[in-house]
Amino acid sequence: MRAVDIIMKKRDGGELSREEIGFLIGGFVAGEIPDYQVSAWAMAVFYNGMTPVETAALTEIMLKSGKTIDLSGIPGPFVDKHSTGGVGDKTSLILAPLAAALGIRDPMMSGRALGHTGGTLDKLEAIPGYRTSLSMEEFRDIIRRDGFAMTGQTKEIVPADRLLYALRDVTGTVESIPLITASILSKKAAEGTEGLALDVKYGSGAFKKEAERGEELARSLVDTGAALGLKVWALLTNMNEPLGNKVGNFLEIEESLDCLEGGGPEDLMEVTLELAARMAVLGGKAKDPAEGRKLCEETIKGGKPRELFLRNVKSQGGDPEKLLEMRGVYRSPFSAVITAKFPAAFRAGEDAYISRIDAWKIGHASVQLGVGRNRTEDAVCPTAGVEFHHKRGSRVKAGDKIMTVWAADEAGLNEALPALADAVEYSAAAPGKERLILKEIAFHKETAE
Amino acid sequence: MRAVDIIMKKRDGGELSREEIGFLIGGFVAGEIPDYQVSAWAMAVFYNGMTPVETAALTEIMLKSGKTIDLSGIPGPFVDKHSTGGVGDKTSLILAPLAAALGIRDPMMSGRALGHTGGTLDKLEAIPGYRTSLSMEEFRDIIRRDGFAMTGQTKEIVPADRLLYALRDVTGTVESIPLITASILSKKAAEGTEGLALDVKYGSGAFKKEAERGEELARSLVDTGAALGLKVWALLTNMNEPLGNKVGNFLEIEESLDCLEGGGPEDLMEVTLELAARMAVLGGKAKDPAEGRKLCEETIKGGKPRELFLRNVKSQGGDPEKLLEMRGVYRSPFSAVITAKFPAAFRAGEDAYISRIDAWKIGHASVQLGVGRNRTEDAVCPTAGVEFHHKRGSRVKAGDKIMTVWAADEAGLNEALPALADAVEYSAAAPGKERLILKEIAFHKETAE
Repeated sequence: MRAVDIIMKKRDGGELSREEIGFLIGGFVAGEIPDYQVSAWAMAVFYNGMTPVETAALTEIMLKSGKTIDLSGIPGPFVDKHSTGGVGDKTSLILAPLAAALGIRDPMMSGRALGHTGGTLDKLEAIPGYRTSLSMEEFRDIIRRDGFAMTGQTKEIVPADRLLYALRDVTGTVESIPLITASILSKKAAEGTEGLALDVKYGSGAFKKEAERGEELARSLVDTGAALGLKVWALLTNMNEPLGNKVGNFLEIEESLDCLEGGGPEDLMEVTLELAARMAVLGGKAKDPAEGRKLCEETIKGGKPRELFLRNVKSQGGDPEKLLEMRGVYRSPFSAVITAKFPAAFRAGEDAYISRIDAWKIGHASVQLGVGRNRTEDAVCPTAGVEFHHKRGSRVKAGDKIMTVWAADEAGLNEALPALADAVEYSAAAPGKERLILKEIAFHKETAE
Repeated sequence: MRAVDIIMKKRDGGELSREEIGFLIGGFVAGEIPDYQVSAWAMAVFYNGMTPVETAALTEIMLKSGKTIDLSGIPGPFVDKHSTGGVGDKTSLILAPLAAALGIRDPMMSGRALGHTGGTLDKLEAIPGYRTSLSMEEFRDIIRRDGFAMTGQTKEIVPADRLLYALRDVTGTVESIPLITASILSKKAAEGTEGLALDVKYGSGAFKKEAERGEELARSLVDTGAALGLKVWALLTNMNEPLGNKVGNFLEIEESLDCLEGGGPEDLMEVTLELAARMAVLGGKAKDPAEGRKLCEETIKGGKPRELFLRNVKSQGGDPEKLLEMRGVYRSPFSAVITAKFPAAFRAGEDAYISRIDAWKIGHASVQLGVGRNRTEDAVCPTAGVEFHHKRGSRVKAGDKIMTVWAADEAGLNEALPALADAVEYSAAAPGKERLILKEIAFHKETAE
């Protein structure tokens, strides 16, 4: 078998066998097949795609390239959630303790902020002392004790994905549905989860701008999951505007606590509860999403999810008391806790309705503020970010404060301000409501909501 | 500028600027842009092609990546010929001395056999002592003295092509018309030629199987040549069957001498004279191809091309006397000169017409005999090969000798024989004549012949 023949077969639209995919990926991980052949193959996949059988084979081969989490001895059910990435999307922080409160265990492995999207690990690390690099033993132990644990991907888990993603990132081959599918599901299968509630975003702040492309990705994830024995239930959700009222690492921890206390913005709670409802059904705690949603609403009211969140903070090295004290520091402008030393108010330029606050532009501006990073090796600022006082549909007068921003440095603030201004669109008439959840794609059924 | 943005621009069908192409290719040659980015880009070019402006920019950038031959002080005109590669194609060996006899100078840089196609350098090296690695000074001096010289590409000439071709070869990105165009024309422009007669082959033994794809390549070469100030005149010629009656290194030297002596097979002389006629026009020695062809036929009769061929053999280290003695050694089966020690006769299996002798299959069988190579580092056997006693259209009886073959070793002979048998097709009725020259594409005119 020769790598060049495998590349040419895919280039010309052929279907690769499991052996051919295994030869290529296995050889790549072993350092025997050079990256220049793998990148040419990835570009051919970008153009020609993969059949469901190929995608499932690739996912399994990647999964088997490393170790998997051994959850034996811990009673299930194991259900996780994954989002394709957005701006202001902190649902994971609410869903993991909520699921745990229902008696579901969530072995959550998350990622970091990159480009315009935030990262769960960066948000958690905004809690002083919180550790996101757990050993496999710690991960197991904390799941057993608290019902969930939140960690980053270790080097032993799916090394093929780590290598392949790094190569795709610099060769223009990230945006390929089968490659995204294999990347997500190989990691989720390695965690040991049995069910997966999936938030596939579409819109300006998502990787897939068009709903159709988002749906295609969702379908690929559901189908490939089925081939691997993993129940995937996907919601196609709107990411044209940031989710919730806060974008930033510590700011999103604050807002998650609000949600766990029964508050929180309506759009964020809507997506969170719909995902939670599916996790409840996947975990056998409800017969359908409606019952699941009701159960989740009641469970939040009971306070257990908040308690489990704080317990997890302690289990992973943070101080829950200190965390609770830190809430509200943004209202004390001279607090030493806020390392983002350059606050500013962003005010409305006219009397009008806000017709849209663009998620992609807010995401990019927030990188300039210090929330995220353009390169994996960059550091982030835990307390930088944006708080929205008004969003789409608000009627504002010139001079009204639309956002408060906190920047890590002055240069970043000066770059971010015009970008933020560019993100806000006004209209004379009240804008119509946008649908937040467009569709769901469940294992072997499909229902428009 | 970032390489990944350039890759994504091409991936999405954009037109790259000269600066972007220069950044990528210049960085690659300098070792600053890694091969995995260049191979992903090459695959994107494979799918999305390049505009004429992009192709011309790439060609010029590649040309400028190294040194060019300085022909100043040598009176022109300089006209060369290039073939996209075939089986039994020895026209270069006849054309260079023929053009020189007309007063045209041909600075010919050639390549080696690879895969099923033969290589001019390997054929010349079948002449004992003949050197194909001339220094730039030797190349100049021999052109000045003999009117032409024949050498391989040195490391200083178009290093970008050497690097890029090696990468394309292992990443399934060879068959891209703009990349082939830039590879051919950057080298031809570096030689210092002003005009180029181009033999673009189509058919089973060519890189482009369909005439349409061959024509597309020819047009790209003509147009890109025009953008570089190089007059390119292309003939689209049939390579469904081997050209001439001999395939092999020394065998093709023999057949070239036959042609230079006014003999030679009809198909080979037809392609040679039509290309020669265009070289004559390009060099200002004839007003049109018809006049050029007549001039070339008379010039061959006068004997000067043969004399110049032998003079060049001497200039490049060979012994013309010894070469002439060697002719006909194939008729002395025990000659020490024939290092291909395993001769065999291939005979007709039935009473029928030969309807076709497939060029691609003959090319591959001849690699097994020792004529060519599958990998650039392999050696070739100078005296291995095939002589056809019958070709398409011949009426044969069972037992008639269709080919004599000479193999470098017994294993190769045993592999080649069934492949040769597979190459010969029979029919009950006489096959129609195939057109040898389908079309010509000249700088700013197009005529179906």
